[in-house]
Amino acid sequence: MEAKAFQDSYPDDASHCYGCGRFNARGLQIKSYWEGDEAVCHFTPKSYHTAIPGYVYGGLIASLIDCHSTGTASAAARQRETGPEGSGPAAMFLTASLHVDYLKPTPIDATLEVRAVIKEIKGRKVVVASRLIAAGKICATGEVVAVEVPEHLMPR
Amino acid sequence: MEAKAFQDSYPDDASHCYGCGRFNARGLQIKSYWEGDEAVCHFTPKSYHTAIPGYVYGGLIASLIDCHSTGTASAAARQRETGPEGSGPAAMFLTASLHVDYLKPTPIDATLEVRAVIKEIKGRKVVVASRLIAAGKICATGEVVAVEVPEHLMPR
Repeated sequence: MEAKAFQDSYPDDASHCYGCGRFNARGLQIKSYWEGDEAVCHFTPKSYHTAIPGYVYGGLIASLIDCHSTGTASAAARQRETGPEGSGPAAMFLTASLHVDYLKPTPIDATLEVRAVIKEIKGRKVVVASRLIAAGKICATGEVVAVEVPEHLMPR
Repeated sequence: MEAKAFQDSYPDDASHCYGCGRFNARGLQIKSYWEGDEAVCHFTPKSYHTAIPGYVYGGLIASLIDCHSTGTASAAARQRETGPEGSGPAAMFLTASLHVDYLKPTPIDATLEVRAVIKEIKGRKVVVASRLIAAGKICATGEVVAVEVPEHLMPR
């Protein structure tokens, strides 16, 4: 049985995100999972996700880091509330800030892996550090400050 | 006569970028122009560029800031080389780092405006500061460190 992705626990009404909404047919449909203390997502770029020919568009990398990090924040907050086996709907997180360092050009003919760890979790704020790996090399690193979505912004 | 966008001066072989390549039919086709000392781009999000319902996906905002900033770096470098009326092919810039602060949720039913200024230009490096405005409010700010694309990465 495959583990459930973090994003599969988001409420239906909040699952239309271009990056990770399971109901967004035009979107990237990013899926994130725990591997021990790290959260991992894999993504295979399409040929049109190019920057200069042969390399992945930086905005796609930023998008993967963004949604993978808010997903990881959500999963970590749920673990804090309910323990490692916790289920039920997950709190949603939005991005307060996003930082990406592009260390080297990312080859477009590789499956991209983003690995994230929780750097800080305090109240409604979670800081997530990540790295993007392609063909065995770290091509970018990211840091996202995620904040739980305020009640008045949640769809109902 | 409409002014030529910065991205229209990129070499043909380097104009397939998902964010700003004029030959990328699936891409965002961002266009940037000078308005005095500021560079401006406008973008109307599609309905599928959503985050939580009603608001723009943060990865799209990062993408707009990214390509508008590298475009602005390219245009500024060209002005430095050839003066304000300079023409000919533009040097291309890649993103060394991208930082976005999301100040408030960005409404999806608005035309987005990104306004950028050159913060620093030195050798092959240009630092570009920007703000994203929707419905009259600054919803995000960005800072991009852009570096001229090394010769060996340029397509030919």
